[in-house]
Amino acid sequence: MQKFDFTIPAFEERSVQSPVSLSERNDDYIANYVEDNERIIYNIETTRDERSISFTQTDLIEKAGPREKIYFNPDLVHAGIVTCGGLCPGLNNVIRAIVMCLWYQYGVKRISGIQYGYRGFLEKFSLPVMQLRPEKVRDIHTRGGTILGSSRGYGDFVAEIVDSVEKMNLDMLFTIGGDGTQKGALNISRELEKRNLKIAVVGVPKTIDNDLSFVQKSFGFESAVSEAVKAVAGAHTEAENAINGIGIVKVMGRESGFIAAHTALANNDVNYVLIPEVPFDLDGENGLLRHLEKRLERRHHAVILVAEGAGQELLAASCGVDASGNKKLGDIGIFLKDKISEYFRKKQIEINLKYIDPSYIIRSTPANPNDSIYCARLGTNAVHAAMAGKTEVLISLFNNHFVHIPISLAVSRKNRIDPDRELWCDVVMVTGQPRLMKN
Amino acid sequence: MQKFDFTIPAFEERSVQSPVSLSERNDDYIANYVEDNERIIYNIETTRDERSISFTQTDLIEKAGPREKIYFNPDLVHAGIVTCGGLCPGLNNVIRAIVMCLWYQYGVKRISGIQYGYRGFLEKFSLPVMQLRPEKVRDIHTRGGTILGSSRGYGDFVAEIVDSVEKMNLDMLFTIGGDGTQKGALNISRELEKRNLKIAVVGVPKTIDNDLSFVQKSFGFESAVSEAVKAVAGAHTEAENAINGIGIVKVMGRESGFIAAHTALANNDVNYVLIPEVPFDLDGENGLLRHLEKRLERRHHAVILVAEGAGQELLAASCGVDASGNKKLGDIGIFLKDKISEYFRKKQIEINLKYIDPSYIIRSTPANPNDSIYCARLGTNAVHAAMAGKTEVLISLFNNHFVHIPISLAVSRKNRIDPDRELWCDVVMVTGQPRLMKN
Amino acid sequence: MQKFDFTIPAFEERSVQSPVSLSERNDDYIANYVEDNERIIYNIETTRDERSISFTQTDLIEKAGPREKIYFNPDLVHAGIVTCGGLCPGLNNVIRAIVMCLWYQYGVKRISGIQYGYRGFLEKFSLPVMQLRPEKVRDIHTRGGTILGSSRGYGDFVAEIVDSVEKMNLDMLFTIGGDGTQKGALNISRELEKRNLKIAVVGVPKTIDNDLSFVQKSFGFESAVSEAVKAVAGAHTEAENAINGIGIVKVMGRESGFIAAHTALANNDVNYVLIPEVPFDLDGENGLLRHLEKRLERRHHAVILVAEGAGQELLAASCGVDASGNKKLGDIGIFLKDKISEYFRKKQIEINLKYIDPSYIIRSTPANPNDSIYCARLGTNAVHAAMAGKTEVLISLFNNHFVHIPISLAVSRKNRIDPDRELWCDVVMVTGQPRLMKN
Amino acid sequence: MQKFDFTIPAFEERSVQSPVSLSERNDDYIANYVEDNERIIYNIETTRDERSISFTQTDLIEKAGPREKIYFNPDLVHAGIVTCGGLCPGLNNVIRAIVMCLWYQYGVKRISGIQYGYRGFLEKFSLPVMQLRPEKVRDIHTRGGTILGSSRGYGDFVAEIVDSVEKMNLDMLFTIGGDGTQKGALNISRELEKRNLKIAVVGVPKTIDNDLSFVQKSFGFESAVSEAVKAVAGAHTEAENAINGIGIVKVMGRESGFIAAHTALANNDVNYVLIPEVPFDLDGENGLLRHLEKRLERRHHAVILVAEGAGQELLAASCGVDASGNKKLGDIGIFLKDKISEYFRKKQIEINLKYIDPSYIIRSTPANPNDSIYCARLGTNAVHAAMAGKTEVLISLFNNHFVHIPISLAVSRKNRIDPDRELWCDVVMVTGQPRLMKN
Repeated sequence: MQKFDFTIPAFEERSVQSPVSLSERNDDYIANYVEDNERIIYNIETTRDERSISFTQTDLIEKAGPREKIYFNPDLVHAGIVTCGGLCPGLNNVIRAIVMCLWYQYGVKRISGIQYGYRGFLEKFSLPVMQLRPEKVRDIHTRGGTILGSSRGYGDFVAEIVDSVEKMNLDMLFTIGGDGTQKGALNISRELEKRNLKIAVVGVPKTIDNDLSFVQKSFGFESAVSEAVKAVAGAHTEAENAINGIGIVKVMGRESGFIAAHTALANNDVNYVLIPEVPFDLDGENGLLRHLEKRLERRHHAVILVAEGAGQELLAASCGVDASGNKKLGDIGIFLKDKISEYFRKKQIEINLKYIDPSYIIRSTPANPNDSIYCARLGTNAVHAAMAGKTEVLISLFNNHFVHIPISLAVSRKNRIDPDRELWCDVVMVTGQPRLMKN
Repeated sequence: MQKFDFTIPAFEERSVQSPVSLSERNDDYIANYVEDNERIIYNIETTRDERSISFTQTDLIEKAGPREKIYFNPDLVHAGIVTCGGLCPGLNNVIRAIVMCLWYQYGVKRISGIQYGYRGFLEKFSLPVMQLRPEKVRDIHTRGGTILGSSRGYGDFVAEIVDSVEKMNLDMLFTIGGDGTQKGALNISRELEKRNLKIAVVGVPKTIDNDLSFVQKSFGFESAVSEAVKAVAGAHTEAENAINGIGIVKVMGRESGFIAAHTALANNDVNYVLIPEVPFDLDGENGLLRHLEKRLERRHHAVILVAEGAGQELLAASCGVDASGNKKLGDIGIFLKDKISEYFRKKQIEINLKYIDPSYIIRSTPANPNDSIYCARLGTNAVHAAMAGKTEVLISLFNNHFVHIPISLAVSRKNRIDPDRELWCDVVMVTGQPRLMKN
Repeated sequence: MQKFDFTIPAFEERSVQSPVSLSERNDDYIANYVEDNERIIYNIETTRDERSISFTQTDLIEKAGPREKIYFNPDLVHAGIVTCGGLCPGLNNVIRAIVMCLWYQYGVKRISGIQYGYRGFLEKFSLPVMQLRPEKVRDIHTRGGTILGSSRGYGDFVAEIVDSVEKMNLDMLFTIGGDGTQKGALNISRELEKRNLKIAVVGVPKTIDNDLSFVQKSFGFESAVSEAVKAVAGAHTEAENAINGIGIVKVMGRESGFIAAHTALANNDVNYVLIPEVPFDLDGENGLLRHLEKRLERRHHAVILVAEGAGQELLAASCGVDASGNKKLGDIGIFLKDKISEYFRKKQIEINLKYIDPSYIIRSTPANPNDSIYCARLGTNAVHAAMAGKTEVLISLFNNHFVHIPISLAVSRKNRIDPDRELWCDVVMVTGQPRLMKN
Repeated sequence: MQKFDFTIPAFEERSVQSPVSLSERNDDYIANYVEDNERIIYNIETTRDERSISFTQTDLIEKAGPREKIYFNPDLVHAGIVTCGGLCPGLNNVIRAIVMCLWYQYGVKRISGIQYGYRGFLEKFSLPVMQLRPEKVRDIHTRGGTILGSSRGYGDFVAEIVDSVEKMNLDMLFTIGGDGTQKGALNISRELEKRNLKIAVVGVPKTIDNDLSFVQKSFGFESAVSEAVKAVAGAHTEAENAINGIGIVKVMGRESGFIAAHTALANNDVNYVLIPEVPFDLDGENGLLRHLEKRLERRHHAVILVAEGAGQELLAASCGVDASGNKKLGDIGIFLKDKISEYFRKKQIEINLKYIDPSYIIRSTPANPNDSIYCARLGTNAVHAAMAGKTEVLISLFNNHFVHIPISLAVSRKNRIDPDRELWCDVVMVTGQPRLMKN
């Protein structure tokens, strides 16, 4: 079992009594403060024969939540919020929760929204800051996207960003974004430390692909899956209603197939799920094409759900990286569509293939109720962390608890589906697809 | 910390090789069997200063999942499924998943649906058994309710039920239902054991109130919350658009306020959440009515969300139990409506009060995508458990893992919101309601 | 065939060239102005043997739409908007459309929203006027209700309202509301005329019950039906899943059963629709109770959909009127529930009755896409009418054309389902209910 | 004004008393039969100065509905149903309504579903007929697509189809499909007549593009628009949240822009609607590109909604026809995307362009409540027409009445948006787009 250091950097001297009036004792019907030494066990899997597990101080994950003593004086706090990268359901909910908790629970009245991601910090773009108040954010959770706007990249302009943070006199910065954003946040925080500035950097991890480590389910993921389910339902209807109908749906997932896997579990109509984590052959007796042919003989229609990062080894290598540094991929959806069409044309078997790429519809949808709950709680806990002087920290739900994860740890590796384990097991059970389509 | 015995009863002699072809090794891209000694730690909360925790054999929770060696010979298996109690989103999804997994993964072709709950076992009602096959269940997940029908009660007719189970030659019985149902299942299982019958009893816990122990989120709960959110949105619109508009919404939750709490977190428009776990006063300076009055002065509208079991101490004691043995409650919604109207009438303050009771709309809705995923996985794992000869066991998602919980343990106590802890803490943060409305 | 006078009052001297640049000729791909003499035939039903129909000048309905010459100088116009009565899906859409059309098409920049219905005009309530601009209304169509708030009554305070209109220097007033509101609008307009004020009063008819004459489908009606359909689906699921399950759903419709009739046509699961226009017996061989009993014998479940105004002759006369002057009704839903329970209890037949009253959920929902289209077009045409100096006029969709209806005509009678004609015919066909449940 | 002959062919000798018990008189609360001489005026637009209009016998449109005397003896009837062409929301609703009305109202028990369109009639494909009964169709309206399957083409195999119809001994054939399908139906009917077979051919017109003449709104159209609205909402969110964000959505509409126009009216966020009926330039001071640039300067984002058949004159001529004989079109969406990208790249203006093609998601969705109502009524009226011996007839909603339209008339021309008239007028008002983007 790999070991991780979950120690959270924090500004010492938490000497301010929190204005959030909670309780220190049980059974008074009033919610309690979270004590700073409360921890969650990271690895909770073991075997019947184990009799004990032991920890070092750095093995355990710190619980999130309101502290009784905080670092910042709320009357003086100036908070900044920035949203970066691609859209994801729930961004506005997180912004709203941060603003509401700062304003009503802590009494912080200076809250600045940085526009269009880290770019909003760069002087040359002259993007004005948006003053955030309850009236401004009250209804934003009903809309997709982010009222702050977003953009990719610019996380490398660390010095300029920190100059700007300094000039604005921010005390805390909430960075809502994915891998690239949080790497930027880490570098910003380190530069702040170099300059000896006590400015808390608290991240809310965003990844529609669910591929961030130490974040078991990212916000917006469920909402995205809900939309993908609709696209698959459409593909299934088209496939069922045509002679040898084949529906192909492509969903997000450059390096991990979580959206595809969950969509298949939700929908029950998918016959083949193709994800980046599991290679597959097209040709040969155990290849996708032959399996598809046999299914059409048997059932006369089929639905294929493919994550955009699947089957990359099959595509002629395409290169380059986008503005966030993600590897550019060939389009596996179009590739499959062409290969399947060709295969059956050669065999002179009539098929009716329909290709659906729901693309941005999935990520621009508002958060569903469960994601709304999650975002509300993430944002609230991010505020508690920042007010308590925690920094370089992400708020995450892990093993069913809201916790603090060091940013440095979270950005060190990606979350992927482990084909050996339960999620993939359940996917192959529910779809009935071949265990592995490799010759 | 309380100790629990998580030992799962099982029929020994698992000598049949599972027809479900999975892998025993890692890194072959093929999902693995779950080994019988895999366990999950139950209590994962600790403190920074802890250096180790130790277990006995019964402290750890058994993981669910497909076993390589199983107890039953699939060719000979006759499986029964029964759904009991009130409707809940996802019942059909669970039925579907059980049938599909039995049929396609294990090759079990004799699957009988018992109609209208345990009543379907009782001879005097002459309810025919429904033969379940893939065609029969293929599309049922798009509909609310249960194709088997349901009823309350009859769990006490243990001898008659077991007679019937014996006569049908069932090898396994899947009991989908709540507290009462699983208590019945436990008694059935014990009677089966007395008669020396090796018939596996595997429960899928159902409780729209989310009040079953050792089940951190029950299936259908999210879908129910989604519907409740719509009712609250309606109440909020009504309240906002009228002079001193007050919207009251009553939701399910006899003994626990999970639906109310989650709905408030999802909706952001609720000002007061009233749940059974937290007492409140109506009168006095710190009572609900005075707080409501102050809010109307300040904001001119308010939304109150009340769980049906809240404030029972305020209602004149109402007695009796329903067919499932649940305590009958006075109607807190109507009670509040009347009290609030009276209070403001006396004060000669104009209000516009709108009362919404979405009642059955909430529980009869189909499962949303996330509940669909959950139900698919619960049903699949229930089949694995039964085929492996596990019995008196519930399938549950606990600490993010699918596990086996002894029925005897699960029915021994109820799950309730702990007002001292995080969920309630986040609710009071997000609603901004008074910490406690008691004088 | 009854004759109506469709003449629209208008301020003469339309000498201002419309700033809305449209075309006067065909085939230039540019939309045309509507000419003031364009008319629609009111009664379009005839028989094969008819060889001609003749009209007087007042028989034909004036078409709505932009005129080339208008009465008001847009630079000087001050417009007022008021929303009255109960909520209805689409109110915000209509407000938005009026503001957007005034602002962007005509260049009118002074637009005042009167708050909480006619009450907002009354000095003693000191309700401030809301300045309406594009930014204020841009996103309001995604929300139910009305940003202006609403209230019932006050339409009789004609003199005070007109004093207020005069003081505000309004040039046009848009009254969005139902029967009572438009009666008020008519009186206001007449008082304005008496005072020799050229202030246009243009109504957008609102009635969730669809009971306004000369308005074939009122805005928000479809959205309301969509919500009612969900309640019926819930009732159907409950009924189907229980032994002798009976689901009763009560929907709006004091004097006409349009919501109930359309919901039954949309849902296909309703067995009995009870509306105010068609009397029915409870008892006797051809009464509802006996029919229900026979259906339960045959099919074991039933769904009853009842409009709130149905069966009033069966209820012990209940009296009084509400603030808008509507007759107060006894609750037919509760009445039916009690009568049915009693009937089967006496017959010792087990039933499972579930009663659903979706109430305000139905009317507070946002407008669906089709209602959004309708509202956008109603609001736009209301602006054209007012700018052209039309007054005492309602905008309506009649025989598939947007038209001008004199308010005096519209408020003179109610729209009801004619049981002799096609709509009711199709309802009895689709539900399969008895032609008439009278002994 | 063009003249049309609305005479409906019918088998004479309607001597059978309808088993549908309705009334012949008013005021008895029982729906009435429709008399065969009831008619609707086709052209209802006139001017104030008109004093009369005159008709010939063929000018008026026959009303649909149940006749008291019918042609076929229900006990002997064998009915066939076929669905052809692309999917459209509501197909299953129409099938359901036809089956239910035949079965329960007329007592017809032999109903055959022809599979996969006209192809199902062709012997060489050996497609089995599906026996349709109430149980088979009871829940199909909740699903998109058609349980009968569909295919394009084969309408030319008139002789083979009629051979098959004869062999099956059909008495009536319900053809649910678009232009090509109804042309096929017309030819089938003429061949039947040649062979002296009294077999009624009744069409239910289906066209997701709403481009069939004499059908003012086709079934499924609203549902399709509802889905398109979601795609546009996604595009708008993406556009608003990026720097100079441009969202392009392509929707169906080869020869008419009804979906695009209605979607723009429903959504309010579209800035440019491009439809086949209105030409536009890309370049030049009054071209789309320049207008787009000015809008980005002013508002920093834009949404373009384009019907697939728009701007064909701008695309390099692409040729060929598909299996239904529709002209193949170049992809205007991709074309616009490329042209816009190139334009701003050359001008060195940063844009963020997102292209969404919801494609099949739109047409495979289930019918919304209003379309469900419409389909229920279309199907019911189709049965009445067939039972009464009407043939070569389409059921349509025209001027708000269900009517009979001769197929020969309906297929003679296409329905298109008239840019001179109200619909387009309202679109340019609501979007605020330039009146015409031509230099």
